[in-house]
Amino acid sequence: MKQKHYDHQSELGILDYIFNARSVAVVGASANTNKMGHTLLRNILDGGFEGPVYPINPKEPEILGVACYPSLLEVPGDVDLVVVAVPAPVVPSVMEQAASKNTHGAIIVSGGFREIGNEELEAKVMGLAREHSIAVIGPNCQGINYTPNKLCASWPLMTTPGVLGIIAQSGTIAAAMGGWAADENLGFSCICALGNMSGVNETDMLQFLGNDPETKVIALNLEGVSNGKRFLEVAREVAARKPVIVLKPGRTELGAKAAQSHTKSLAGDDRVFDAVCKKTGLIRVDELEEFYDVCKAFCYISQLPGPRLQVVTSSGGSGILAADVAIHQGLTLPEPDPADKEKLEQVLPPQCVIGNPLDLTGDATSGRYGDALAVLAKTDTVDGFLVIFGDPVEGAAETMCEVRQSTDKPIIVAYLGGGETEVVETGKLQKEGFPVFPTPERATRAAGYLYKRAQSV
Amino acid sequence: MKQKHYDHQSELGILDYIFNARSVAVVGASANTNKMGHTLLRNILDGGFEGPVYPINPKEPEILGVACYPSLLEVPGDVDLVVVAVPAPVVPSVMEQAASKNTHGAIIVSGGFREIGNEELEAKVMGLAREHSIAVIGPNCQGINYTPNKLCASWPLMTTPGVLGIIAQSGTIAAAMGGWAADENLGFSCICALGNMSGVNETDMLQFLGNDPETKVIALNLEGVSNGKRFLEVAREVAARKPVIVLKPGRTELGAKAAQSHTKSLAGDDRVFDAVCKKTGLIRVDELEEFYDVCKAFCYISQLPGPRLQVVTSSGGSGILAADVAIHQGLTLPEPDPADKEKLEQVLPPQCVIGNPLDLTGDATSGRYGDALAVLAKTDTVDGFLVIFGDPVEGAAETMCEVRQSTDKPIIVAYLGGGETEVVETGKLQKEGFPVFPTPERATRAAGYLYKRAQSV
Repeated sequence: MKQKHYDHQSELGILDYIFNARSVAVVGASANTNKMGHTLLRNILDGGFEGPVYPINPKEPEILGVACYPSLLEVPGDVDLVVVAVPAPVVPSVMEQAASKNTHGAIIVSGGFREIGNEELEAKVMGLAREHSIAVIGPNCQGINYTPNKLCASWPLMTTPGVLGIIAQSGTIAAAMGGWAADENLGFSCICALGNMSGVNETDMLQFLGNDPETKVIALNLEGVSNGKRFLEVAREVAARKPVIVLKPGRTELGAKAAQSHTKSLAGDDRVFDAVCKKTGLIRVDELEEFYDVCKAFCYISQLPGPRLQVVTSSGGSGILAADVAIHQGLTLPEPDPADKEKLEQVLPPQCVIGNPLDLTGDATSGRYGDALAVLAKTDTVDGFLVIFGDPVEGAAETMCEVRQSTDKPIIVAYLGGGETEVVETGKLQKEGFPVFPTPERATRAAGYLYKRAQSV
Repeated sequence: MKQKHYDHQSELGILDYIFNARSVAVVGASANTNKMGHTLLRNILDGGFEGPVYPINPKEPEILGVACYPSLLEVPGDVDLVVVAVPAPVVPSVMEQAASKNTHGAIIVSGGFREIGNEELEAKVMGLAREHSIAVIGPNCQGINYTPNKLCASWPLMTTPGVLGIIAQSGTIAAAMGGWAADENLGFSCICALGNMSGVNETDMLQFLGNDPETKVIALNLEGVSNGKRFLEVAREVAARKPVIVLKPGRTELGAKAAQSHTKSLAGDDRVFDAVCKKTGLIRVDELEEFYDVCKAFCYISQLPGPRLQVVTSSGGSGILAADVAIHQGLTLPEPDPADKEKLEQVLPPQCVIGNPLDLTGDATSGRYGDALAVLAKTDTVDGFLVIFGDPVEGAAETMCEVRQSTDKPIIVAYLGGGETEVVETGKLQKEGFPVFPTPERATRAAGYLYKRAQSV
């Protein structure tokens, strides 16, 4: 593999040509706003990519104000990465041009290959890629979005930087996860929708993000595994250093059948994959929303060191919902120790129910939360806090920032039933780096996974 | 019970004095915006209540531009309902004044009664209520919000009318459910947060909303049941006519303990309550978000008449997530019959995967959805549709409205991974009366409960 202009980051390997590309050509760039080749060009430009961008289209002098070139070969400068959105039969010639241009990264968004029975065409494209050392993502994929390089070669346009790296076989799951992360200001380092995975596969990406300093947490959506032995090795190695959360649907027979017709993945025995996760320290979740919740929690909190959670709430009803889920997640809600109970009785009004859940009752102010948590901040009897705001509690974010100064225990937040105040305070809490969930159950479940991580490392 | 000015709706009984009140006094109305007595007055005024509103406060000439009266007795006109937000020790005298004023409805928001050990004071208040035939909600409650009477005697302010009636022992659960319903334009007929339930209890409310013509679906959050035999009778009678969805947390030992310390409810054996639900046709859910999702589905769709669901999606990955949940919910995804398959092959491009899930693939337009659903609209092989938009599909709402014209089968929608298009189309779909969910799993689970209803009636 040639690396003549990659000395600065050659250690990251061939994927670097794609993610850290310094110049990008969009082959099949279109002036028609309904075409994928338009969307891709626009998102790369609007996403803020700082290197040169070359639209390739023989019929247009310029698109979106950027000069077009009739072919890759006419581009004056280097092209690190080609993003390909031309019809499938044209893709082999694009690969040949890329080889002539000494390009080593390609994202093939075009569909019309193996997924509809055109195995031969796909084999031809991949043969060229191998021959010329071109790393390929796809074909038939939704592209990549890598915020450290401000490179949104995908859709929809999302640009919020963060520490979450998302690898997905499903473009929809990638886009949904990225969208939620952007909406909540959590952001992401990377979104990679793998498509047919004829070149770069899930294990390559896991290894790449495992080594990527911008990525602290990895979300991995799989339908099948390309090479079990290598996956096992890489997963173990990466999961020892970073939380890797896995959504692998197709757990039921019907789901497995659907997975097979989607990506031709053989799901294998689901219990075997469960065992792989346990062995390697991968954290497996069951559903898409949970996938996002758990990733979010890990972006803020590395783990819950033990199972003992103190629930502090203004809503007794919410405390019950949390308690039910806590038990299912292997967490415990120990009673505060007698000395702490006494102190709590001194600082809290008489209607409060001193226990676990600690019910501050519906007229609780943020000050009352602060008073209660000041007592509990240093206690030895719990490993973390679940703080539930079940009313329009103003100043919640400010109080929680103060509380965080006085404790090193993880704090997970739920906020609900608070109308406009909830919207304001949730936004502030998220901005301050607290994981906030809209229901007690979702918060508690996330806490359970934070504890699972402590058990696996 | 005196009903001299209630001839028009006397059949609804004593609760009518509260929900259909034609005049309201707020005892403890305050000019201080931090006080509950201010919030309640403001929400009643801003909520659009059309009858006279009388703030009662001996120290203020007017609050929020409305003339104050020093006591209930000075109010010139009739007072159907008093909303009470004075300190607990003053409440008995308010009840006496209400009796003198011939008032028959009271919402006692004030806390400081049984929940903190003041059983005696609560008994005194309730003794006066019984003596003078005053229906009481509370004490220690978050009030009521009844949109047919534009009466928001609660918080936060929410005014979106709808067909969902929410009864909750937890004020937070009531507010969260109402908030989500308002945000999604689903709306509600009634929100009632019961508090200590010394007067009106969960069974009274179930009966009231069972007879309320504005309420088509009932959400019931319970921690315990006041009178098992009567509850059983009323539940059976109401559930035969309207879907009643029940969230009764405290299923685990820890949760039950938390419930007991919250509302002193004895949760009883959870399996017994499960049996009660089965016997009466109550639809029991496990978690708060599911509670909302299932209620939402029933507001639009009365039932799924059989278990056979056709999934139509642009996202193969989403189809797998749906398939896994479908099986757990007792649903089936039958293959389309051969004649329909043939027609689908004719109208769809070759990359589509004809089956169940029917995968229209990532470049699907709303037109492609329309073509596929036109073929399937009249099929006998399924009982309903789950339509998943897994990409930014423009025109989704318009297409689904057309599809609905050609089929009488229920349609449930999931929309995800669609960026700004998703926000626009989801809003339109909701406005057009489609239940839309943000993940395939939540949509499928709701479908499962719609089928459970068909099995129970």
